[in-house]
Amino acid sequence: MSAANINIPDSTQPRVVIVGGGFGGLTLADKMSKMNFQVILIDKNNFHQFQPLFYQVAMAGLEPSSILFPLRKLFQKRKNVFIRVTTVTKVDTRHKRIHTLLGELHYDHLVLAIGADTNFFGNEKIARKAFSMKSVGEALTLRNKIFYDYERAITTMDYKERQGLIDIVIVGGGPTGVEVAGALAEMKKYIIPKDYTELDTNEIDIYLIQGGDCLLKGMSVEASQKAEEFLKELGVIIKLNSRVEDFDGKHVHIKGGEKIQANKVIWAAGIKGNTVAGLPEESIVWGGRIKVDRENRVAGVENVYAIGDIAYMEEPDYPKGHPQVAQVAIQQGKNLAYNFKLQAKEKPFKPFKYKDLGSMATIGRNRAVVDLPKFKFQGFFAWIVWLFVHLFSLIGMKNRVFVFINWVWNYFTYDQSLRLIIRPKNRIEKEETPS
Amino acid sequence: MSAANINIPDSTQPRVVIVGGGFGGLTLADKMSKMNFQVILIDKNNFHQFQPLFYQVAMAGLEPSSILFPLRKLFQKRKNVFIRVTTVTKVDTRHKRIHTLLGELHYDHLVLAIGADTNFFGNEKIARKAFSMKSVGEALTLRNKIFYDYERAITTMDYKERQGLIDIVIVGGGPTGVEVAGALAEMKKYIIPKDYTELDTNEIDIYLIQGGDCLLKGMSVEASQKAEEFLKELGVIIKLNSRVEDFDGKHVHIKGGEKIQANKVIWAAGIKGNTVAGLPEESIVWGGRIKVDRENRVAGVENVYAIGDIAYMEEPDYPKGHPQVAQVAIQQGKNLAYNFKLQAKEKPFKPFKYKDLGSMATIGRNRAVVDLPKFKFQGFFAWIVWLFVHLFSLIGMKNRVFVFINWVWNYFTYDQSLRLIIRPKNRIEKEETPS
Repeated sequence: MSAANINIPDSTQPRVVIVGGGFGGLTLADKMSKMNFQVILIDKNNFHQFQPLFYQVAMAGLEPSSILFPLRKLFQKRKNVFIRVTTVTKVDTRHKRIHTLLGELHYDHLVLAIGADTNFFGNEKIARKAFSMKSVGEALTLRNKIFYDYERAITTMDYKERQGLIDIVIVGGGPTGVEVAGALAEMKKYIIPKDYTELDTNEIDIYLIQGGDCLLKGMSVEASQKAEEFLKELGVIIKLNSRVEDFDGKHVHIKGGEKIQANKVIWAAGIKGNTVAGLPEESIVWGGRIKVDRENRVAGVENVYAIGDIAYMEEPDYPKGHPQVAQVAIQQGKNLAYNFKLQAKEKPFKPFKYKDLGSMATIGRNRAVVDLPKFKFQGFFAWIVWLFVHLFSLIGMKNRVFVFINWVWNYFTYDQSLRLIIRPKNRIEKEETPS
Repeated sequence: MSAANINIPDSTQPRVVIVGGGFGGLTLADKMSKMNFQVILIDKNNFHQFQPLFYQVAMAGLEPSSILFPLRKLFQKRKNVFIRVTTVTKVDTRHKRIHTLLGELHYDHLVLAIGADTNFFGNEKIARKAFSMKSVGEALTLRNKIFYDYERAITTMDYKERQGLIDIVIVGGGPTGVEVAGALAEMKKYIIPKDYTELDTNEIDIYLIQGGDCLLKGMSVEASQKAEEFLKELGVIIKLNSRVEDFDGKHVHIKGGEKIQANKVIWAAGIKGNTVAGLPEESIVWGGRIKVDRENRVAGVENVYAIGDIAYMEEPDYPKGHPQVAQVAIQQGKNLAYNFKLQAKEKPFKPFKYKDLGSMATIGRNRAVVDLPKFKFQGFFAWIVWLFVHLFSLIGMKNRVFVFINWVWNYFTYDQSLRLIIRPKNRIEKEETPS
């Protein structure tokens, strides 16, 4: 790429560089593109990903395209927005520049919305062998693996070996773990007996391993208990107060000595902030998050902000930081955009205050748990609420239509036609991908 | 895979092994599964692919799942059907066995419906560097590459280098080449100016290189001329009587000395039969096809049949073999199933007779060319016919619904939201895929 250059035109507008097109970065870019700024949006992908439904992609319930949206399409009409698909390698706060794989770029304001990735807590062996779901690519890889292993299971005569192919261990009892466990249990109940008549579905075990003493730790006791009850009804084997010590690709070793034969471990036990070089050491706090003040300014540097999962902000109501969820990111994106507006009027920034809209998780059809600030409910109505909240949170009318049709179809047929093991040839990845 | 075994139960029913789940193999499997046979369907993929729309996947007009259908779902209710996702490595006609990556299997009847792949006519260099579209994986790879290159083009300052990224050379003026050229020209016209405002679309050139003296060689003169006219209206540069001699990934060398700077060559210039070891040498004829008699029996062996693209059959009306199109495969599948029915009644086989239902190709919106046996037409009405014929040929009601919505959406918005560069992680391919 001899003649490559990030190639952003000069402008009289102040330049805000937003790194990351997730919930936070996208909200901010959208707001700021309507203000007097030149907005540079940088992401490794050319699309926004709707993370809460990754698990449905992995479980062959939705197509990836239904929960992705091309960034360029979103900003087609905003002439002050420039999108660059690349990786930021370093921040140079002294010269107000960032280094990317496409070259360097000056910023007036830099907003890091770089999110978080799976945290294997230093266990390299598990990291190499386990599956995670922090990108749609990972979700597709897991989908391929699940159905590939079912294919192999019907031609595997050895009982133990077959167990390894069909049993699945999920690590982490948060919303992702619970939702994956529910979806896998439903697949076992409704899909596998029809698709793999040669397989004895009773042989399939789904384990959910949770370090703490209850599921859905951040939610209410009612939600937690109901989730456990729902999952048990679906046949999921729940192990509380359990930790996975080791996984060699064939056996899962639980602390205390238990060993489970399973080729697939789905790791949903934690996240850690993505990293970018060049920030002061003291600004990186636990979980790899970047410490910010109440106005999302990164501690110790000028004109650099962090929002969303990557940001660690202490609020009186959240003395240990906010939960790493979409709502915090969206609200911080909005607040920061508002602050830039205030700044233009030479008014002081408005401190961020998180408004908890509630949290929810679904456990298969007709079952979900919902905690709203004022009341909590579980079961069918909660499931309906879950569906509509997620449907309307999606970006793009066509995505909403397609997800809706998929869900209705799935609900009435108990079946989908997405169990496809698709593998692109990897020409691009091998030869040219810089990131 | 120590304990792997193809694991087909013994049966009192005669066993027919069908290799390949394309149009021919699938039609045959469907018919025979309703007869008194044990049907083994073997494919490298766990899905049927609707080849005529690969180019729309590559051009980000359709999602892969819309034109694929899981084989297991198709045969969920047929207890005498066994599906195996594997590769056949060898046919042992003497012992009536096949060798697969999952082990060996006895057959009473073997039907090879293994289709064809891209033919680079021995040019290894072009084969390594060019893109082809004979699987949905290849179509996705091409899609990723096209949008990846547009991303790179806006940050490439060197004119020549940028040309390489945005210009595309299509080799082959058959239906695939013509349809791809039309789709790319429309993308240049409607999509790129909106998504890549920073790019000068006038710089984008789309070349269609055809060895013969006209496009759509198998079709009527009217169709051929109209297709050329339509493509020229869309700005495609058509080079007839031209041959690509070399392609190094950067430059395309045309016979006679012309050189085009382009990173992407889409090769649609020919196909050759897929191979399987163990057939008598004299049964393999030109284009890698397997010579069969009028009852689809492979020349020189017993109980082995070939149907579809792989089969070479001389009929009085087709002294040089049938065109390698879906209709021949479907009709041969039906005829062979019918012959097995006759055989069960100890009646002689019925010779195959191809009924040409016509052929068609589309060149962007509102434009297609259709040759029916009795009359020919081109333009808008032809385009409507093309749409409905393809829509109703798809397998699965949901696929039809989704493709229909996609097309309607696309027609009115001139836009799609599928321009996604998605790359699964390649765990499976690296570690375990046997094929």
